[in-house]
Amino acid sequence: MARVRLYVDHPLAEGQPVPLSREEAHYLFGVMRLGQGAEVAVFNGQDGEWTARVAEAGKRGGSLEPVAQAAPQSLPPDVWLLFAPVKKARTDFIVEKAVEMGVRRLVPVATDFTNSERIRQDRLQAHAKEAAEQCGATFVPEVTELAKLPALLSDWPEERRLMFCDEARAGGAGAFASATGDGPWAILVGPEGGFSEAERSRLDAMPQAHVAALGPRILRADTAAVAALTLWQTRFGDWR
Amino acid sequence: MARVRLYVDHPLAEGQPVPLSREEAHYLFGVMRLGQGAEVAVFNGQDGEWTARVAEAGKRGGSLEPVAQAAPQSLPPDVWLLFAPVKKARTDFIVEKAVEMGVRRLVPVATDFTNSERIRQDRLQAHAKEAAEQCGATFVPEVTELAKLPALLSDWPEERRLMFCDEARAGGAGAFASATGDGPWAILVGPEGGFSEAERSRLDAMPQAHVAALGPRILRADTAAVAALTLWQTRFGDWR
Repeated sequence: MARVRLYVDHPLAEGQPVPLSREEAHYLFGVMRLGQGAEVAVFNGQDGEWTARVAEAGKRGGSLEPVAQAAPQSLPPDVWLLFAPVKKARTDFIVEKAVEMGVRRLVPVATDFTNSERIRQDRLQAHAKEAAEQCGATFVPEVTELAKLPALLSDWPEERRLMFCDEARAGGAGAFASATGDGPWAILVGPEGGFSEAERSRLDAMPQAHVAALGPRILRADTAAVAALTLWQTRFGDWR
Repeated sequence: MARVRLYVDHPLAEGQPVPLSREEAHYLFGVMRLGQGAEVAVFNGQDGEWTARVAEAGKRGGSLEPVAQAAPQSLPPDVWLLFAPVKKARTDFIVEKAVEMGVRRLVPVATDFTNSERIRQDRLQAHAKEAAEQCGATFVPEVTELAKLPALLSDWPEERRLMFCDEARAGGAGAFASATGDGPWAILVGPEGGFSEAERSRLDAMPQAHVAALGPRILRADTAAVAALTLWQTRFGDWR
Protein backbone atom coordinates (compact mmCIF):
# COMPACT_ATOMS: atom_id res chain seq x y z
CA MET A 1 0.00 0.00 0.00
CA ALA A 2 1.11 3.51 -0.77
CA ARG A 3 1.87 5.68 2.22
CA VAL A 4 -0.86 8.00 3.46
CA ARG A 5 -0.37 11.53 2.13
CA LEU A 6 -2.10 14.38 3.89
CA TYR A 7 -2.44 18.06 3.10
CA VAL A 8 -2.29 20.14 6.29
CA ASP A 9 -2.89 23.81 6.79
CA HIS A 10 0.07 24.32 9.12
CA PRO A 11 3.79 25.18 8.78
CA LEU A 12 6.05 22.15 8.46
CA ALA A 13 9.40 22.19 10.23
CA GLU A 14 11.37 19.76 12.34
CA GLY A 15 10.15 19.52 15.90
CA GLN A 16 7.14 21.71 15.26
CA PRO A 17 4.04 19.61 16.02
CA VAL A 18 1.13 19.72 13.63
CA PRO A 19 -2.25 19.63 15.37
CA LEU A 20 -4.92 17.55 13.65
CA SER A 21 -8.53 18.52 13.16
CA ARG A 22 -11.32 16.15 14.06
CA GLU A 23 -11.74 15.21 10.37
CA GLU A 24 -8.02 14.59 9.90
CA ALA A 25 -7.91 12.46 13.04
CA HIS A 26 -10.92 10.50 11.88
CA TYR A 27 -9.28 9.87 8.51
CA LEU A 28 -5.87 8.86 9.89
CA PHE A 29 -6.92 6.88 12.94
CA GLY A 30 -10.45 5.78 12.09
CA VAL A 31 -10.35 5.15 8.34
CA MET A 32 -6.67 4.40 7.76
CA ARG A 33 -6.23 2.81 11.22
CA LEU A 34 -2.87 4.40 11.89
CA GLY A 35 -1.54 4.41 15.45
CA GLN A 36 1.07 6.32 17.41
CA GLY A 37 4.47 6.22 15.72
CA ALA A 38 3.07 5.51 12.25
CA GLU A 39 4.65 7.43 9.39
CA VAL A 40 2.69 9.62 7.03
CA ALA A 41 3.62 12.07 4.29
CA VAL A 42 2.42 15.62 4.79
CA PHE A 43 2.55 18.78 2.72
CA ASN A 44 1.07 22.25 3.06
CA GLY A 45 1.65 23.77 -0.36
CA GLN A 46 4.68 25.74 0.83
CA ASP A 47 7.23 23.62 2.68
CA GLY A 48 7.55 20.61 0.37
CA GLU A 49 6.70 17.08 1.44
CA TRP A 50 7.63 15.96 4.94
CA THR A 51 7.75 12.59 6.57
CA ALA A 52 5.92 12.88 9.87
CA ARG A 53 5.16 10.53 12.73
CA VAL A 54 1.91 10.25 14.60
CA ALA A 55 2.70 11.77 18.01
CA GLU A 56 -0.79 11.65 19.49
CA ALA A 57 -3.75 9.69 18.12
CA GLY A 58 -7.16 10.54 19.55
CA LYS A 59 -10.74 10.17 18.47
CA ARG A 60 -11.25 13.89 18.10
CA GLY A 61 -7.78 15.09 17.33
CA GLY A 62 -4.10 14.37 17.70
CA SER A 63 -0.84 15.60 16.33
CA LEU A 64 1.89 14.79 13.88
CA GLU A 65 5.58 15.43 14.33
CA PRO A 66 7.49 16.31 11.16
CA VAL A 67 10.70 14.23 11.01
CA ALA A 68 12.44 15.23 7.79
CA GLN A 69 11.71 16.87 4.50
CA ALA A 70 11.20 14.14 1.89
CA ALA A 71 10.82 16.34 -1.19
CA PRO A 72 11.25 20.05 -1.90
CA GLN A 73 8.28 22.27 -2.60
CA SER A 74 7.43 22.28 -6.28
CA LEU A 75 4.98 24.41 -8.18
CA PRO A 76 3.12 23.38 -11.31
CA PRO A 77 3.74 25.63 -14.31
CA ASP A 78 1.93 28.97 -14.38
CA VAL A 79 -1.15 27.82 -16.23
CA TRP A 80 -4.78 28.29 -15.20
CA LEU A 81 -7.63 26.09 -16.30
CA LEU A 82 -10.84 27.95 -17.09
CA PHE A 83 -13.70 25.50 -17.39
CA ALA A 84 -17.47 25.63 -17.64
CA PRO A 85 -19.07 23.64 -14.84
CA VAL A 86 -20.99 20.64 -16.09
CA LYS A 87 -22.85 17.94 -14.17
CA LYS A 88 -21.63 17.52 -10.62
CA ALA A 89 -19.60 14.33 -11.01
CA ARG A 90 -17.94 15.56 -14.19
CA THR A 91 -17.06 18.91 -12.65
CA ASP A 92 -15.40 17.01 -9.80
CA PHE A 93 -13.47 15.02 -12.39
CA ILE A 94 -12.30 18.15 -14.17
CA VAL A 95 -10.88 19.46 -10.89
CA GLU A 96 -9.26 16.15 -10.00
CA LYS A 97 -7.72 15.72 -13.44
CA ALA A 98 -6.44 19.28 -13.67
CA VAL A 99 -4.58 18.83 -10.39
CA GLU A 100 -2.99 15.60 -11.62
CA MET A 101 -2.04 17.21 -14.93
CA GLY A 102 -0.63 20.26 -13.11
CA VAL A 103 -2.24 23.69 -12.99
CA ARG A 104 -1.69 26.77 -10.83
CA ARG A 105 -5.32 27.85 -10.58
CA LEU A 106 -8.78 26.52 -11.42
CA VAL A 107 -11.38 29.01 -12.62
CA PRO A 108 -14.99 27.88 -13.10
CA VAL A 109 -16.58 30.12 -15.74
CA ALA A 110 -20.18 30.71 -16.74
CA THR A 111 -20.43 30.85 -20.53
CA ASP A 112 -23.44 31.41 -22.80
CA PHE A 113 -24.03 27.67 -23.10
CA THR A 114 -23.18 26.70 -19.51
CA ASN A 115 -26.00 24.66 -18.00
CA SER A 116 -24.96 24.91 -14.42
CA GLU A 117 -25.06 28.37 -12.91
CA ARG A 118 -23.88 27.37 -9.47
CA ILE A 119 -20.88 25.65 -8.04
CA ARG A 120 -19.92 24.62 -4.55
CA GLN A 121 -16.50 26.25 -4.37
CA ASP A 122 -15.69 24.60 -1.03
CA ARG A 123 -16.48 21.16 -2.43
CA LEU A 124 -14.35 21.72 -5.51
CA GLN A 125 -11.50 23.04 -3.36
CA ALA A 126 -11.72 19.90 -1.20
CA HIS A 127 -11.52 17.79 -4.37
CA ALA A 128 -8.41 19.67 -5.45
CA LYS A 129 -6.81 18.92 -2.07
CA GLU A 130 -7.66 15.22 -2.30
CA ALA A 131 -6.33 15.03 -5.84
CA ALA A 132 -3.05 16.62 -4.72
CA GLU A 133 -2.80 14.12 -1.87
CA GLN A 134 -3.34 11.28 -4.30
CA CYS A 135 -1.09 12.36 -7.18
CA GLY A 136 2.04 13.19 -5.20
CA ALA A 137 1.91 16.94 -5.76
CA THR A 138 3.07 19.33 -3.05
CA PHE A 139 0.83 22.14 -4.26
CA VAL A 140 -2.95 22.55 -4.18
CA PRO A 141 -4.30 24.91 -6.83
CA GLU A 142 -6.80 27.50 -5.72
CA VAL A 143 -10.34 26.99 -7.05
CA THR A 144 -11.93 30.40 -7.53
CA GLU A 145 -15.59 31.28 -7.29
CA LEU A 146 -17.63 31.06 -10.51
CA ALA A 147 -16.77 33.95 -12.82
CA LYS A 148 -18.68 35.19 -15.84
CA LEU A 149 -16.68 34.84 -19.02
CA PRO A 150 -17.21 38.43 -20.31
CA ALA A 151 -16.12 39.94 -16.97
CA LEU A 152 -13.10 37.65 -16.88
CA LEU A 153 -12.04 38.54 -20.41
CA SER A 154 -12.55 42.28 -20.03
CA ASP A 155 -10.11 42.23 -17.14
CA TRP A 156 -7.71 39.73 -18.70
CA PRO A 157 -4.01 40.14 -17.81
CA GLU A 158 -2.15 41.48 -20.82
CA GLU A 159 0.74 39.04 -20.56
CA ARG A 160 -1.27 35.85 -19.97
CA ARG A 161 -1.86 33.91 -23.16
CA LEU A 162 -5.04 31.92 -23.57
CA MET A 163 -5.35 28.52 -25.24
CA PHE A 164 -8.90 28.66 -26.55
CA CYS A 165 -10.15 25.11 -27.13
CA ASP A 166 -12.76 25.45 -29.80
CA GLU A 167 -14.06 22.20 -31.21
CA ALA A 168 -13.26 21.51 -34.82
CA ARG A 169 -11.40 24.76 -35.45
CA ALA A 170 -7.91 23.87 -36.54
CA GLY A 171 -6.52 27.36 -36.24
CA GLY A 172 -4.52 29.19 -38.82
CA ALA A 173 -3.00 32.51 -37.76
CA GLY A 174 -2.88 32.81 -33.99
CA ALA A 175 -3.27 29.08 -33.53
CA PHE A 176 -1.93 27.33 -30.46
CA ALA A 177 0.10 24.99 -32.68
CA SER A 178 2.27 27.90 -33.79
CA ALA A 179 2.63 29.68 -30.42
CA THR A 180 6.14 29.92 -29.02
CA GLY A 181 8.01 31.58 -26.18
CA ASP A 182 7.64 31.68 -22.41
CA GLY A 183 5.20 33.34 -20.06
CA PRO A 184 1.98 32.62 -18.20
CA TRP A 185 -0.92 30.86 -19.86
CA ALA A 186 -4.52 29.87 -19.31
CA ILE A 187 -6.54 27.16 -21.01
CA LEU A 188 -10.23 27.71 -21.76
CA VAL A 189 -12.39 24.62 -22.19
CA GLY A 190 -16.08 25.18 -22.96
CA PRO A 191 -19.24 23.41 -21.95
CA GLU A 192 -20.54 20.50 -24.00
CA GLY A 193 -22.50 22.82 -26.29
CA GLY A 194 -19.33 24.73 -27.21
CA PHE A 195 -19.10 28.52 -27.43
CA SER A 196 -21.58 31.07 -28.78
CA GLU A 197 -20.77 33.16 -31.83
CA ALA A 198 -20.49 36.24 -29.60
CA GLU A 199 -17.95 34.46 -27.38
CA ARG A 200 -15.99 33.28 -30.41
CA SER A 201 -15.78 36.80 -31.83
CA ARG A 202 -14.76 38.22 -28.47
CA LEU A 203 -12.01 35.63 -28.05
CA ASP A 204 -10.79 35.82 -31.64
CA ALA A 205 -10.28 39.55 -31.16
CA MET A 206 -8.00 39.07 -28.16
CA PRO A 207 -4.30 39.14 -29.02
CA GLN A 208 -3.66 36.75 -26.13
CA ALA A 209 -5.97 34.05 -27.52
CA HIS A 210 -4.63 31.07 -29.47
CA VAL A 211 -7.19 28.68 -30.91
CA ALA A 212 -6.60 24.97 -30.45
CA ALA A 213 -8.58 22.07 -31.89
CA LEU A 214 -8.92 18.80 -30.06
CA GLY A 215 -9.41 16.27 -32.82
CA PRO A 216 -12.31 15.36 -35.08
CA ARG A 217 -14.65 13.87 -32.47
CA ILE A 218 -16.71 15.73 -29.87
CA LEU A 219 -15.04 15.46 -26.47
CA ARG A 220 -16.83 15.71 -23.17
CA ALA A 221 -15.66 18.62 -21.07
CA ASP A 222 -13.57 16.47 -18.71
CA THR A 223 -11.88 14.66 -21.61
CA ALA A 224 -11.21 17.98 -23.32
CA ALA A 225 -9.58 19.38 -20.17
CA VAL A 226 -7.11 16.48 -19.95
CA ALA A 227 -6.37 16.55 -23.68
CA ALA A 228 -5.80 20.32 -23.69
CA LEU A 229 -3.56 20.11 -20.63
CA THR A 230 -1.55 17.32 -22.27
CA LEU A 231 -0.96 19.48 -25.35
CA TRP A 232 -0.05 22.47 -23.23
CA GLN A 233 2.21 20.58 -20.79
CA THR A 234 4.23 18.95 -23.56
CA ARG A 235 4.64 22.27 -25.37
CA PHE A 236 5.14 24.78 -22.55
CA GLY A 237 4.94 23.01 -19.20
CA ASP A 238 6.78 20.52 -17.01
CA TRP A 239 6.18 17.52 -19.27
CA ARG A 240 8.81 18.81 -21.69
CA MET B 1 -30.77 20.28 -27.95
CA ALA B 2 -28.53 18.03 -30.00
CA ARG B 3 -30.25 15.50 -32.20
CA VAL B 4 -30.64 11.97 -30.87
CA ARG B 5 -27.89 9.68 -32.22
CA LEU B 6 -28.43 5.95 -32.12
CA TYR B 7 -26.20 3.00 -32.92
CA VAL B 8 -28.19 0.23 -34.61
CA ASP B 9 -27.12 -3.27 -35.49
CA HIS B 10 -28.73 -3.24 -38.93
CA PRO B 11 -27.74 -2.26 -42.49
CA LEU B 12 -28.52 1.34 -43.38
CA ALA B 13 -29.78 2.13 -46.85
CA GLU B 14 -32.54 4.26 -48.34
CA GLY B 15 -35.97 2.71 -48.07
CA GLN B 16 -34.73 -0.20 -45.96
CA PRO B 17 -36.62 -0.01 -42.63
CA VAL B 18 -34.64 -0.51 -39.43
CA PRO B 19 -36.59 -2.48 -36.81
CA LEU B 20 -36.16 -1.28 -33.24
CA SER B 21 -35.64 -3.46 -30.20
CA ARG B 22 -37.69 -2.97 -27.08
CA GLU B 23 -34.80 -1.08 -25.44
CA GLU B 24 -34.31 1.18 -28.44
CA ALA B 25 -38.05 1.90 -28.59
CA HIS B 26 -38.09 2.65 -24.87
CA TYR B 27 -35.19 5.06 -25.27
CA LEU B 28 -36.52 6.88 -28.34
CA PHE B 29 -40.21 7.02 -27.48
CA GLY B 30 -40.24 6.72 -23.69
CA VAL B 31 -37.11 8.60 -22.59
CA MET B 32 -36.56 11.01 -25.49
CA ARG B 33 -40.32 11.30 -26.22
CA LEU B 34 -39.96 11.18 -29.99
CA GLY B 35 -43.03 10.46 -32.09
CA GLN B 36 -43.74 9.31 -35.63
CA GLY B 37 -41.96 11.45 -38.21
CA ALA B 38 -39.24 12.65 -35.80
CA GLU B 39 -35.71 12.71 -37.16
CA VAL B 40 -32.84 10.88 -35.56
CA ALA B 41 -29.24 10.18 -36.56
CA VAL B 42 -28.31 6.52 -36.86
CA PHE B 43 -25.09 4.66 -37.57
CA ASN B 44 -24.06 1.02 -37.55
CA GLY B 45 -20.28 1.17 -37.71
CA GLN B 46 -20.24 0.42 -41.45
CA ASP B 47 -22.56 2.62 -43.47
CA GLY B 48 -21.74 6.07 -42.11
CA GLU B 49 -24.28 8.29 -40.36
CA TRP B 50 -27.82 8.41 -41.71
CA THR B 51 -30.70 10.72 -41.04
CA ALA B 52 -33.70 8.54 -40.34
CA ARG B 53 -37.36 9.18 -39.57
CA VAL B 54 -39.47 7.38 -37.05
CA ALA B 55 -41.82 5.27 -39.17
CA GLU B 56 -43.52 3.36 -36.35
CA ALA B 57 -43.39 4.23 -32.66
CA GLY B 58 -44.64 1.56 -30.27
CA LYS B 59 -44.14 0.72 -26.63
CA ARG B 60 -42.29 -2.48 -27.39
CA GLY B 61 -40.77 -1.72 -30.73
CA GLY B 62 -41.08 0.31 -33.88
CA SER B 63 -39.02 1.14 -36.89
CA LEU B 64 -36.91 3.84 -38.45
CA GLU B 65 -36.71 4.71 -42.10
CA PRO B 66 -33.30 5.92 -43.31
CA VAL B 67 -33.74 9.06 -45.41
CA ALA B 68 -30.25 10.07 -46.52
CA GLN B 69 -26.65 9.55 -45.60
CA ALA B 70 -25.50 12.52 -43.50
CA ALA B 71 -21.82 11.58 -43.11
CA PRO B 72 -19.61 8.93 -44.65
CA GLN B 73 -18.29 6.04 -42.57
CA SER B 74 -15.04 6.95 -40.86
CA LEU B 75 -12.66 4.79 -38.90
CA PRO B 76 -10.45 5.95 -36.06
CA PRO B 77 -6.73 5.37 -36.62
CA ASP B 78 -5.42 1.84 -36.15
CA VAL B 79 -4.52 2.13 -32.48
CA TRP B 80 -5.60 -0.17 -29.67
CA LEU B 81 -5.82 0.85 -26.03
CA LEU B 82 -4.60 -1.78 -23.59
CA PHE B 83 -5.64 -0.86 -20.07
CA ALA B 84 -5.72 -2.49 -16.67
CA PRO B 85 -9.25 -2.49 -15.25
CA VAL B 86 -9.58 -0.37 -12.13
CA LYS B 87 -12.63 0.41 -10.05
CA LYS B 88 -15.90 0.04 -11.91
CA ALA B 89 -16.71 3.70 -12.51
CA ARG B 90 -13.15 4.50 -13.63
CA THR B 91 -13.04 1.54 -15.98
CA ASP B 92 -16.25 2.83 -17.54
CA PHE B 93 -14.59 6.22 -17.90
CA ILE B 94 -11.53 4.74 -19.60
CA VAL B 95 -13.80 3.10 -22.18
CA GLU B 96 -15.84 6.24 -22.71
CA LYS B 97 -12.80 8.46 -23.05
CA ALA B 98 -10.96 6.10 -25.40
CA VAL B 99 -13.94 6.13 -27.78
CA GLU B 100 -14.03 9.95 -27.74
CA MET B 101 -10.29 10.14 -28.30
CA GLY B 102 -10.49 7.57 -31.11
CA VAL B 103 -9.29 3.97 -30.91
CA ARG B 104 -9.90 0.91 -33.04
CA ARG B 105 -10.01 -1.64 -30.22
CA LEU B 106 -10.13 -1.71 -26.42
CA VAL B 107 -8.25 -4.48 -24.65
CA PRO B 108 -8.63 -4.88 -20.87
CA VAL B 109 -5.44 -6.52 -19.54
CA ALA B 110 -4.63 -8.18 -16.25
CA THR B 111 -1.19 -7.11 -15.08
CA ASP B 112 0.80 -8.06 -11.99
CA PHE B 113 -0.57 -5.08 -10.06
CA THR B 114 -4.12 -5.16 -11.40
CA ASN B 115 -6.61 -5.18 -8.56
CA SER B 116 -9.66 -6.20 -10.49
CA GLU B 117 -9.54 -9.65 -12.03
CA ARG B 118 -12.96 -9.53 -13.63
CA ILE B 119 -14.69 -7.30 -16.08
CA ARG B 120 -18.19 -7.28 -17.53
CA GLN B 121 -17.31 -7.24 -21.20
CA ASP B 122 -20.95 -6.68 -22.22
CA ARG B 123 -21.23 -3.67 -19.95
CA LEU B 124 -18.02 -2.13 -21.27
CA GLN B 125 -19.13 -2.76 -24.85
CA ALA B 126 -22.42 -1.00 -24.10
CA HIS B 127 -20.44 1.94 -22.71
CA ALA B 128 -18.39 2.09 -25.90
CA LYS B 129 -21.59 2.19 -27.94
CA GLU B 130 -23.04 5.02 -25.83
CA ALA B 131 -19.80 7.00 -26.05
CA ALA B 132 -19.83 6.67 -29.84
CA GLU B 133 -23.44 7.86 -29.92
CA GLN B 134 -22.48 10.85 -27.81
CA CYS B 135 -19.22 11.91 -29.48
CA GLY B 136 -20.37 11.87 -33.08
CA ALA B 137 -18.27 8.87 -34.15
CA THR B 138 -19.62 6.44 -36.74
CA PHE B 139 -17.54 3.55 -35.38
CA VAL B 140 -17.79 1.57 -32.14
CA PRO B 141 -14.52 -0.05 -31.06
CA GLU B 142 -14.67 -3.67 -30.01
CA VAL B 143 -14.02 -4.29 -26.32
CA THR B 144 -12.28 -7.65 -25.96
CA GLU B 145 -12.47 -10.03 -23.02
CA LEU B 146 -9.87 -9.58 -20.28
CA ALA B 147 -6.47 -10.82 -21.47
CA LYS B 148 -3.41 -11.62 -19.39
CA LEU B 149 -0.51 -9.35 -20.26
CA PRO B 150 2.13 -12.13 -20.71
CA ALA B 151 -0.12 -14.08 -23.06
CA LEU B 152 -0.92 -10.94 -25.01
CA LEU B 153 2.75 -9.99 -25.36
CA SER B 154 3.96 -13.46 -26.32
CA ASP B 155 1.56 -13.41 -29.25
CA TRP B 156 2.12 -9.75 -30.12
CA PRO B 157 1.83 -8.81 -33.82
CA GLU B 158 5.29 -8.10 -35.20
CA GLU B 159 4.31 -4.91 -37.00
CA ARG B 160 2.20 -3.32 -34.23
CA ARG B 161 4.21 -0.84 -32.18
CA LEU B 162 3.44 -0.41 -28.52
CA MET B 163 3.48 2.90 -26.62
CA PHE B 164 4.38 1.74 -23.14
CA CYS B 165 3.29 4.37 -20.62
CA ASP B 166 5.60 3.89 -17.70
CA GLU B 167 5.33 6.54 -15.02
CA ALA B 168 8.41 8.70 -14.56
CA ARG B 169 10.52 7.00 -17.20
CA ALA B 170 11.43 9.61 -19.75
CA GLY B 171 12.77 7.22 -22.33
CA GLY B 172 16.08 7.45 -24.11
CA ALA B 173 16.66 4.95 -26.93
CA GLY B 174 13.41 3.42 -28.13
CA ALA B 175 11.38 6.19 -26.56
CA PHE B 176 7.99 7.18 -27.95
CA ALA B 177 9.18 10.76 -28.37
CA SER B 178 11.63 9.63 -31.05
CA ALA B 179 9.38 7.14 -32.86
CA THR B 180 8.55 7.93 -36.49
CA GLY B 181 6.86 6.36 -39.48
CA ASP B 182 3.48 4.79 -40.16
CA GLY B 183 1.83 1.56 -39.13
CA PRO B 184 -0.44 0.12 -36.48
CA TRP B 185 0.05 0.95 -32.82
CA ALA B 186 -1.21 0.07 -29.38
CA ILE B 187 -1.00 2.05 -26.16
CA LEU B 188 -0.44 0.29 -22.85
CA VAL B 189 -1.57 2.09 -19.71
CA GLY B 190 -0.99 0.35 -16.39
CA PRO B 191 -2.95 0.10 -13.18
CA GLU B 192 -2.48 2.69 -10.45
CA GLY B 193 0.40 0.73 -8.91
CA GLY B 194 2.32 0.80 -12.20
CA PHE B 195 4.16 -2.18 -13.66
CA SER B 196 6.22 -4.89 -11.99
CA GLU B 197 9.94 -5.24 -12.67
CA ALA B 198 9.25 -8.47 -14.57
CA GLU B 199 6.75 -6.68 -16.79
CA ARG B 200 9.16 -3.81 -17.38
CA SER B 201 11.96 -6.16 -18.45
CA ARG B 202 9.62 -8.10 -20.72
CA LEU B 203 8.40 -4.90 -22.38
CA ASP B 204 11.83 -3.30 -22.63
CA ALA B 205 13.04 -6.36 -24.52
CA MET B 206 10.33 -6.02 -27.18
CA PRO B 207 11.49 -4.20 -30.30
CA GLN B 208 7.93 -2.94 -30.81
CA ALA B 209 7.83 -1.19 -27.41
CA HIS B 210 8.44 2.56 -27.06
CA VAL B 211 8.50 3.98 -23.55
CA ALA B 212 6.55 7.16 -22.88
CA ALA B 213 6.43 9.23 -19.72
CA LEU B 214 3.34 11.19 -18.74
CA GLY B 215 4.73 14.05 -16.69
CA PRO B 216 6.08 14.38 -13.17
CA ARG B 217 2.86 13.72 -11.23
CA ILE B 218 1.14 10.38 -10.71
CA LEU B 219 -1.87 10.11 -12.99
CA ARG B 220 -4.90 7.99 -12.32
CA ALA B 221 -5.45 5.31 -14.94
CA ASP B 222 -8.28 7.17 -16.67
CA THR B 223 -6.30 10.43 -16.81
CA ALA B 224 -3.27 8.53 -18.15
CA ALA B 225 -5.36 6.96 -20.91
CA VAL B 226 -6.56 10.36 -22.18
CA ALA B 227 -3.09 11.92 -21.90
CA ALA B 228 -1.43 9.01 -23.73
CA LEU B 229 -4.06 9.07 -26.47
CA THR B 230 -3.59 12.84 -26.87
CA LEU B 231 0.16 12.36 -27.37
CA TRP B 232 -0.40 9.51 -29.80
CA GLN B 233 -3.18 11.19 -31.79
CA THR B 234 -1.19 14.38 -32.31
CA ARG B 235 1.91 12.40 -33.41
CA PHE B 236 0.45 9.54 -35.44
CA GLY B 237 -3.34 9.77 -35.51
CA ASP B 238 -6.18 11.85 -36.87
CA TRP B 239 -5.47 14.89 -34.69
CA ARG B 240 -2.51 15.79 -36.90
